[in-house]
Amino acid sequence: MQIENPYLLFLGDAPDQLAAKTAHGIADWRRDWCLGQFRMDGCKADLGLPDMSIEAAAAEGAKTLVVGVVNRGGIFSDGWIEVLESALVAGMDLAAGLHNRLADVPRLSAAASQHGRRLFDVRHPTRSFDIATGRKRTGKRLLTVGTDCAVGKKYTALAIEKEMRERGMNVDFRATGQTGILIAGGGVSIDAVVADFISGAAESLSPANEPGHWDVVEGQGSLFHASFAGVSLGLLHGTQPDAIVLCHEPTRTHMRGLPDYALPSLGACIETNLTAARLTNPAVKCVGVSVNTSRMEPADRRRLLLGIEDSLGLPAVDAFQDGAGPIVDRLS
Amino acid sequence: MQIENPYLLFLGDAPDQLAAKTAHGIADWRRDWCLGQFRMDGCKADLGLPDMSIEAAAAEGAKTLVVGVVNRGGIFSDGWIEVLESALVAGMDLAAGLHNRLADVPRLSAAASQHGRRLFDVRHPTRSFDIATGRKRTGKRLLTVGTDCAVGKKYTALAIEKEMRERGMNVDFRATGQTGILIAGGGVSIDAVVADFISGAAESLSPANEPGHWDVVEGQGSLFHASFAGVSLGLLHGTQPDAIVLCHEPTRTHMRGLPDYALPSLGACIETNLTAARLTNPAVKCVGVSVNTSRMEPADRRRLLLGIEDSLGLPAVDAFQDGAGPIVDRLS
Repeated sequence: MQIENPYLLFLGDAPDQLAAKTAHGIADWRRDWCLGQFRMDGCKADLGLPDMSIEAAAAEGAKTLVVGVVNRGGIFSDGWIEVLESALVAGMDLAAGLHNRLADVPRLSAAASQHGRRLFDVRHPTRSFDIATGRKRTGKRLLTVGTDCAVGKKYTALAIEKEMRERGMNVDFRATGQTGILIAGGGVSIDAVVADFISGAAESLSPANEPGHWDVVEGQGSLFHASFAGVSLGLLHGTQPDAIVLCHEPTRTHMRGLPDYALPSLGACIETNLTAARLTNPAVKCVGVSVNTSRMEPADRRRLLLGIEDSLGLPAVDAFQDGAGPIVDRLS
Repeated sequence: MQIENPYLLFLGDAPDQLAAKTAHGIADWRRDWCLGQFRMDGCKADLGLPDMSIEAAAAEGAKTLVVGVVNRGGIFSDGWIEVLESALVAGMDLAAGLHNRLADVPRLSAAASQHGRRLFDVRHPTRSFDIATGRKRTGKRLLTVGTDCAVGKKYTALAIEKEMRERGMNVDFRATGQTGILIAGGGVSIDAVVADFISGAAESLSPANEPGHWDVVEGQGSLFHASFAGVSLGLLHGTQPDAIVLCHEPTRTHMRGLPDYALPSLGACIETNLTAARLTNPAVKCVGVSVNTSRMEPADRRRLLLGIEDSLGLPAVDAFQDGAGPIVDRLS
């Protein structure tokens, strides 16, 4: 599966910027893939990209209309179907990462088939995977892991990839969730595969590669999240990371969605991940901590990062705000 | 989902006893549910149950024909379809735990629909599950965990259930794999659910119950198996066990299917399981070790079990051969 770019980002009738979070992610990390944005009447989101009609985007070479917006419930709206259909007619593929499927809308599947276009429902894996073999692969891998869900594992991985690329290193970002897949143009929605194949899917996501090549793999969940730790462990074992980076959101008062569960300490979380990761790669190391400090005052932020560096002896950065330089310094 | 008994066990044209392993499991643990066996020409398996025709079994009240045999590849054979169809016509449901589905055979789905019968493809969950909440439930739970796959977790759970039932305790066996489901008449094939819902499915499998009630849950895989540990961890977190029992096969020279992976030590395996289990139940304890000694000489067997008891300070038994008395003594 490879989603072709350039993209036209569909923002629909997004009621606010947050509803277009997926489109923001794509524009943040792959701006050169984005020809423009398509907004319907009443759209309150704006990526700062040129507003384009379907026809104009197609004429300029847009290959895929990417649904970068969710309505309440994480599904697409009936009101969008006409626009989505017109993109197929104009020669674009469609990609979406929502709970419902483009392929389940008869008008869209008929138009795709008639015009020879593809529908990418990136939340729903369509291929099957082998059982993990546990065999060592050539090349190197970094995995972002978290104290919790939604703490910045994807953005940290992308910031690390960006820094490595700028230094001329041989690197690929490997996506494991729907927004990541739209950013990368491919990947596996790891929490949607059948349980038996989590590690096998992770192995196939970062295949054997050149000895100096790095895959920077987007983590999912947390070994300390009571709902999703199985996914996190299978991803950790299948990735066989040489390096992990711990991601953290310091203002979180309890595990996401679990009011009775406290967050683990950073040290315990690193140790638990390293212990589990050693099963498939005894040489694994933690190379840094990435803290999402967007909700903190600058002075507090600086104090927190220095305190983490002192106590753990690892670089601590906000990779999204400051880049991942000190972490990448540790990769060889 | 509740598969109705009594069963007629279908052995097909099994080339040997091993091919009818599922039927053996059912006959071992639920003999009173088994009216008889149905064998085709050339069948080399025998459960010691009365041979019955479909019509005779139906007349005596058989509710479900259970496919207790696999051919090579873990699928059912075309040659079986006529017999399976005749069971539907005679008023029985069908149940199977194979890779292919009864429901995908047009002749069988048509006959089931015509005669108002049900088809149970127990390897393939047909219901959806909620995300795990991690909330404490009333009642008590025991989970069998393993150093590896296929070390006796199902049989140990069934032996513990049997011993508890004989002592008049309030107990249910909860099945997580296809043979277990056919033995229990219900359950969830946990490795076949979507990864995001492993723990949620485990929570639904052992719901809130009376304070003195025990669910004895069949474990899957091993936290030390590089292919399947995610399933094992999600099951452990969702079950929230009060007690775990470690299962082990002492003649295994490497992890099943993974020639490069050694087995963990019993002590390390217990500690790793307890540490992970404390996330959702801080009061979890290990109450014993169950060793499959079927491939050992009696003297070696006795020495091994005593050695484990001495080194770990826990009862060590072969629960299938000797029963689970010393383990159940530790449950209150």
